[in-house]
Amino acid sequence: MNDRIREILSWYASENPGVRTNLARMLNHGRLGGTGKMVILPVDQGFEHGPARSFAPNPAGYDPRYHFQLAIEAGCNAYAAPLGFLEAGVSDYSGDIPLILKCNDHDLLNDERDPISAVTAGVGDALRLGCVAVGFTIYPGSALRTEMYQQLRELAEEAKAVGLAVVVWSYPRGSSLSKEGETAVDVVAYAAQIAAQLGANIIKVKLPSEHVELVEAQKVYQKYEIPIATLADRVRHVVQSAFDGRRIVIFSGGTYAADETFFEEVRAIRDGGGFGSIIGRNSFQRKKPEALKFLDTVMRIYEGSNG
Amino acid sequence: MNDRIREILSWYASENPGVRTNLARMLNHGRLGGTGKMVILPVDQGFEHGPARSFAPNPAGYDPRYHFQLAIEAGCNAYAAPLGFLEAGVSDYSGDIPLILKCNDHDLLNDERDPISAVTAGVGDALRLGCVAVGFTIYPGSALRTEMYQQLRELAEEAKAVGLAVVVWSYPRGSSLSKEGETAVDVVAYAAQIAAQLGANIIKVKLPSEHVELVEAQKVYQKYEIPIATLADRVRHVVQSAFDGRRIVIFSGGTYAADETFFEEVRAIRDGGGFGSIIGRNSFQRKKPEALKFLDTVMRIYEGSNG
Amino acid sequence: MNDRIREILSWYASENPGVRTNLARMLNHGRLGGTGKMVILPVDQGFEHGPARSFAPNPAGYDPRYHFQLAIEAGCNAYAAPLGFLEAGVSDYSGDIPLILKCNDHDLLNDERDPISAVTAGVGDALRLGCVAVGFTIYPGSALRTEMYQQLRELAEEAKAVGLAVVVWSYPRGSSLSKEGETAVDVVAYAAQIAAQLGANIIKVKLPSEHVELVEAQKVYQKYEIPIATLADRVRHVVQSAFDGRRIVIFSGGTYAADETFFEEVRAIRDGGGFGSIIGRNSFQRKKPEALKFLDTVMRIYEGSNG
Amino acid sequence: MNDRIREILSWYASENPGVRTNLARMLNHGRLGGTGKMVILPVDQGFEHGPARSFAPNPAGYDPRYHFQLAIEAGCNAYAAPLGFLEAGVSDYSGDIPLILKCNDHDLLNDERDPISAVTAGVGDALRLGCVAVGFTIYPGSALRTEMYQQLRELAEEAKAVGLAVVVWSYPRGSSLSKEGETAVDVVAYAAQIAAQLGANIIKVKLPSEHVELVEAQKVYQKYEIPIATLADRVRHVVQSAFDGRRIVIFSGGTYAADETFFEEVRAIRDGGGFGSIIGRNSFQRKKPEALKFLDTVMRIYEGSNG
Amino acid sequence: MNDRIREILSWYASENPGVRTNLARMLNHGRLGGTGKMVILPVDQGFEHGPARSFAPNPAGYDPRYHFQLAIEAGCNAYAAPLGFLEAGVSDYSGDIPLILKCNDHDLLNDERDPISAVTAGVGDALRLGCVAVGFTIYPGSALRTEMYQQLRELAEEAKAVGLAVVVWSYPRGSSLSKEGETAVDVVAYAAQIAAQLGANIIKVKLPSEHVELVEAQKVYQKYEIPIATLADRVRHVVQSAFDGRRIVIFSGGTYAADETFFEEVRAIRDGGGFGSIIGRNSFQRKKPEALKFLDTVMRIYEGSNG
Repeated sequence: MNDRIREILSWYASENPGVRTNLARMLNHGRLGGTGKMVILPVDQGFEHGPARSFAPNPAGYDPRYHFQLAIEAGCNAYAAPLGFLEAGVSDYSGDIPLILKCNDHDLLNDERDPISAVTAGVGDALRLGCVAVGFTIYPGSALRTEMYQQLRELAEEAKAVGLAVVVWSYPRGSSLSKEGETAVDVVAYAAQIAAQLGANIIKVKLPSEHVELVEAQKVYQKYEIPIATLADRVRHVVQSAFDGRRIVIFSGGTYAADETFFEEVRAIRDGGGFGSIIGRNSFQRKKPEALKFLDTVMRIYEGSNG
Repeated sequence: MNDRIREILSWYASENPGVRTNLARMLNHGRLGGTGKMVILPVDQGFEHGPARSFAPNPAGYDPRYHFQLAIEAGCNAYAAPLGFLEAGVSDYSGDIPLILKCNDHDLLNDERDPISAVTAGVGDALRLGCVAVGFTIYPGSALRTEMYQQLRELAEEAKAVGLAVVVWSYPRGSSLSKEGETAVDVVAYAAQIAAQLGANIIKVKLPSEHVELVEAQKVYQKYEIPIATLADRVRHVVQSAFDGRRIVIFSGGTYAADETFFEEVRAIRDGGGFGSIIGRNSFQRKKPEALKFLDTVMRIYEGSNG
Repeated sequence: MNDRIREILSWYASENPGVRTNLARMLNHGRLGGTGKMVILPVDQGFEHGPARSFAPNPAGYDPRYHFQLAIEAGCNAYAAPLGFLEAGVSDYSGDIPLILKCNDHDLLNDERDPISAVTAGVGDALRLGCVAVGFTIYPGSALRTEMYQQLRELAEEAKAVGLAVVVWSYPRGSSLSKEGETAVDVVAYAAQIAAQLGANIIKVKLPSEHVELVEAQKVYQKYEIPIATLADRVRHVVQSAFDGRRIVIFSGGTYAADETFFEEVRAIRDGGGFGSIIGRNSFQRKKPEALKFLDTVMRIYEGSNG
Repeated sequence: MNDRIREILSWYASENPGVRTNLARMLNHGRLGGTGKMVILPVDQGFEHGPARSFAPNPAGYDPRYHFQLAIEAGCNAYAAPLGFLEAGVSDYSGDIPLILKCNDHDLLNDERDPISAVTAGVGDALRLGCVAVGFTIYPGSALRTEMYQQLRELAEEAKAVGLAVVVWSYPRGSSLSKEGETAVDVVAYAAQIAAQLGANIIKVKLPSEHVELVEAQKVYQKYEIPIATLADRVRHVVQSAFDGRRIVIFSGGTYAADETFFEEVRAIRDGGGFGSIIGRNSFQRKKPEALKFLDTVMRIYEGSNG
Repeated sequence: MNDRIREILSWYASENPGVRTNLARMLNHGRLGGTGKMVILPVDQGFEHGPARSFAPNPAGYDPRYHFQLAIEAGCNAYAAPLGFLEAGVSDYSGDIPLILKCNDHDLLNDERDPISAVTAGVGDALRLGCVAVGFTIYPGSALRTEMYQQLRELAEEAKAVGLAVVVWSYPRGSSLSKEGETAVDVVAYAAQIAAQLGANIIKVKLPSEHVELVEAQKVYQKYEIPIATLADRVRHVVQSAFDGRRIVIFSGGTYAADETFFEEVRAIRDGGGFGSIIGRNSFQRKKPEALKFLDTVMRIYEGSNG
């Protein structure tokens, strides 16, 4: 392991060697292995948004094996998916890429104001499938967040005890937040902090906007002139909010954008000290050759090139 | 152990030696060690109020290690924080300061009238992290208090069986109380009593105001002319309300105040027979040299000087 | 054991010898030991009503040890209190008086129409503290009674299995009852029956008034001319309603009264075949010499004197 | 994963994906990764033979970190050691090489005729240390073999359920075997079969001699003219005896030999269809540069060169 | 924590922070706190040798509290004793000295050739008594060693999971060893290695003699000219045999010796890189003032003086 990876692992000194081994497996795998940067392919949209919305743009993606292949060929650090998708493909790709088992999922057939995901898999599944980590989504801002935090707490305790790393999707949502507030910089930073305090090893948040949602926070951002004008500034603030950069924070691009806009965001993540990207629809919803080209550019940016 | 510590521990004779050992570890640690007084540094505000509101005033505090260092250098009796903050720093400071694991936490992304904190850590975490105690917040007055009392009861039973002390933050809040009522002297005294009856070893309450909230209580305070005119009077009443002074009760100062006002309050805590202070934002939100100077004054007051 | 105690224990023949031993410990302890009558000191008012309302009239009562001393000096059969009060005093009085651990409690900082107490202690606590029984309050009439009955059922099953007796405070309250109805004779009798059916070994109810609350009950009381004109009549009816006198039923006096009124009530309990009194505020809210004199009179009445 | 690895994994289709992932991790790691051949470094001799006998020839080996470094630099597929050695080094090399936790060990301070190893570690240890497999030694021929088989059965069941592969050292020993019989070809083949039948994923045996130990076996070897004249013949027979080559069988060289003799044996293993070598003393008992050169030759032979 | 303590703790990086905290508590306590050296007072001789043989020379030692006082006044790093002795004294000295609960014990009323100690306490006891570590004796060389190793393995797994350190007394004994062999340098080194491989955090062995017991070992000691002529040489070899000095190894002096002989041995432990002494009979079998003087000299030697 090189010095950068050693440094990152040192932040997790209170975890057992199993957790650190699995973090190292992700950090050292794929094209960005050893750089301290990560690109993860997540494919939970079949559950979260429905199959046609997810896979019709590139029907190859209906097949669970497609996403393993895509992640492997692109040189991603890891592939994350719900139970069924992993079960349906893992035997063909055993050991070829680190796997993250998404352990809760939410569907849109009943889209509540205050959502909570169903717990759909657990530590036993992750072990029998050979995963390196469990993934869990929390919705800070939801009236049901208390229950989610507690579910995460129990999952994380069980997972870490057996050496699995814990990846948390921290997505503010719920009746107490405006739509704009879900990606407000103060809210995203707060969501990163909550995930870190709950014991997350890797934290995934959305890219923050310049909006500040909470009145009390607004005063602080102004008084202390916290720089949030550029995306890189905001990424830096979010990373700082996750234990001063001592937790791995990666970002999702969210909705479709022109590729160049997307690459611009990746450069901002890199320049703001973010640890990488988790890229789902923007990769698997195009034909594989295009997807590989797209991800190649992303990784080149993280390697330090301009893309 | 000196006579004062022996006396304090005698109040906990029904606890097992493990609990008493961990109480002694806190009472004997740091600059106030052996005096029977305590100053504890709690840093849960990242979770409770958000990262920028908590750490922007002194950005060093984004780093979890900072608070360990601050507590150690200031000579605090203990440091209290949520799971993530302890996990991220404990390996660098093993055994250097008694640790209290905050086992439930609440965030402001959804700020209900009747709050309940999420259970975010447990006894297993406290043991593997080498803590001396678990901490738990209850909100007497909340419509959900029954659930919180029961969570505390289960946590306390489990914790004490393995020798961990139990620290309870008893903060009246909820739809049945006026804002002013949250710190009313009768309500704070009642909150201290409830925590003591629930088996708390150390009770943390807010400094009480002269206001009396409950009608039935008002009659009693008047009839029996309970002295509540000065802060020292009210501290004395709260301490009396926690088993006639046979439970350790410490006080928080709450929001910012001019330092001298704060010191005045500390003198009142001391003169009223309080056992010490739990000081978060007033310490970690200023630069370390100033914080050390500030805490030095606080400790001098508890040592009997005028500050 | 004398014949009367043997007779009382014969009603509990299906309980294991441990439960019967602990019932015998209470029945044979103190000044009324062996008479089949009981006077129990309960002190849960600090939790239930708040510290000042409970202890300001006689500030010695802020100290948990005071109540042990009072119960012992007065020759009570048992002392009942919540977890914290027992923990804080038991080590000074180990074995000096039978102890009942109140396992649920309710506070007034949020006073609902349909109350439920929080479970605040359990069988493990009772065993480690050396108690003879667990105590539990149910509120028949509350919309949440089902949950309370189930909690009691679980507690009683666990307690009896390890030989602890079960004492039930059965206090009708809730949105479905008028204020007057809470002590209506039909309601109190019904509450005693419910407690007995739930497996209570000792049942504590309030003294019943002449009021009949339930329409359907009213018809029956009239049709069968059930005697309820005098307090002794009503006590007799309540005792009959608890398995025809084959369960120990004791009564509380409730709010303050002139002492002679109180003694009159005690005579009615005795004459109506009640098994004794549970006397809290009327005893610990006066100075100890007065309290001892007061309790001496009560016990003399139960011994058959006129007081 | 390439076709050869896919083929090997197909033999383990009844194992869960976790076990296959961990087999793949070993098969794909290091210099022989992807060839289907393996060289594993085992260092349990400190326990099995004592420290001086093991490490005095190359004192660097007293340090547990040395063996991690050696295995990594040599490009071994995996490193196997007892609990203490793994615990003492794993944090410095997390994820750098697949680890096998030796779960039982035997020492020579009491050298019985019918040995049994002590169970010294378990599945929980393997998981928290981030291992890919558990290792277990059985002594077919020992009067205590039944107990060992049953211990293995329990360990294997538990290990496979959580995705850990099972490596079995199958070493005939005991009062019923002559010293020569311990490596007799019939006995070694029998030992390989027993391990396979017990569910071993990887089987380690000693190189078989031409001797045939068991009388009944002798008749069969003669009658069917089983070729055992050359070492390659005997390796082929042993591999055949482990499910016709559908289980990974690797061989140990045992005591010191001239290097060329050793290499000759490796060529025989390769030519007989063996899957590789497990090389302890022959590697770690020489200075690292020499050890690396030695292992380089071994691996070159497995890669198909003549060494 | 200073650099030396930080270095020592770094050897235990695979343990959880709780174990490291408890190691730090011992390393930082008492007069040698922070030096990396330890003097531990063990008093299990009442069980192991009988009361009169143990305490008649200084009858104050019949009282369990005496040994707490002695360890505290002398400034020892820790006090180790069986269950009963700790239970009988701990409440008077809560938190005053780190405690090690001896979890198995052996008596001489039946003195077998192949001894095994009875398991007399466990992790639950250690936690409720507030201990920092469990202690366990193994007898390598005993025909029953396998059972002891397995008992230790289970105890250690359970203890470490809850943050307790593991101290192993590794005392070769049994029918396969000559009396002289019990302290032979090869045997003691082997015993240290076995304890380390079993996961011991602190290893206690007897001072080794120049004798070499095992024939195979004899050849190695001669061939590699391992220096064992002086006691310091032998201490150095034993420390090396416990993971090249990366495990804390402390030594016992065994039988009575003239004080100066004893001090000479302590100097050899120090000069050979040993981590300290565990001194029972030589301290508690003399009057306290003499014992304190004796231990003062020992500690001065470890501090670097000549005694």
